[in-house]
Amino acid sequence: METLHNETTISLAQLLAHWQGHRGLTRRVIDAFPEDQLFSHTIGGMRTFKELTMELNSMGATGAHGIATGEWKELNKLPGAAELDVNPKTKEGILRLWDWSTDYINNVWPQVHPTRLQETDKAYGQWEGPVWWLLYYFIDNEVHHRGQGYVYLRSLGIEPPPFWDR
Amino acid sequence: METLHNETTISLAQLLAHWQGHRGLTRRVIDAFPEDQLFSHTIGGMRTFKELTMELNSMGATGAHGIATGEWKELNKLPGAAELDVNPKTKEGILRLWDWSTDYINNVWPQVHPTRLQETDKAYGQWEGPVWWLLYYFIDNEVHHRGQGYVYLRSLGIEPPPFWDR
Repeated sequence: METLHNETTISLAQLLAHWQGHRGLTRRVIDAFPEDQLFSHTIGGMRTFKELTMELNSMGATGAHGIATGEWKELNKLPGAAELDVNPKTKEGILRLWDWSTDYINNVWPQVHPTRLQETDKAYGQWEGPVWWLLYYFIDNEVHHRGQGYVYLRSLGIEPPPFWDR
Repeated sequence: METLHNETTISLAQLLAHWQGHRGLTRRVIDAFPEDQLFSHTIGGMRTFKELTMELNSMGATGAHGIATGEWKELNKLPGAAELDVNPKTKEGILRLWDWSTDYINNVWPQVHPTRLQETDKAYGQWEGPVWWLLYYFIDNEVHHRGQGYVYLRSLGIEPPPFWDR
């Protein structure tokens, strides 16, 4: 664990607010899709935005849980998730998963130890790195795919919500 | 300025490496565009990737300079930039600006004070917020627009460099 002498860059509470700000914007992008196009529209052989969103749904609450506890589980194995429909067939079902994850992240975050982000862990038993790097991967991956959702929406003639509004 | 009691989330050196990792990937995405499509290809009335890249070029070195010094300047007003072509008409010219900025960021970053990210500043005299928030905006905006570049490349039948490779 690296020692950071007298550096105060960003707090855990600020990181949570930053992540949740992005998540709120991503929710509005999901919601901006017409139901059918969310499940069918694609460009250049890429995944639909439903599929991209489900990738994000697989790494939100589970990622926060892993950061907070060191346990890396699938979504339906998290406490309270047994009743969740993790294979939603509607926009409403996707958004329900999203909102459940948002609450889960808020609730588990206070368990993150003050120096946890400087530890090394292996996310989902596969990706090894500093915990801050894992957290930033979850956030950056969301921004990356959401940016792709912006192009999908524009190509459908729909104006996406503004990027800066979180 | 918020006091962060005993929290070590991410160091300034790690933030620099994180940003530069993203910048290296974005450079490969720019380079993956055929010269003509970089300046002409668009989807749904959006800007070309050249225009998106030039937005990023306007906020890289200048953003790091602002974070390090509190001075917010246009690119061609930075020390050593007077000879730069800040309106490039070729991919080579865009990449030259990119590489110049990458070096500039590396060189100015050690001037960032250990508690600077918890200060509030007004970037370019316009956007006021915590300095960490300004830094994250620069990075996130790059990830956002680069994700759009991925769709442009896919729509041209070109495989983009992998997202995780930084």
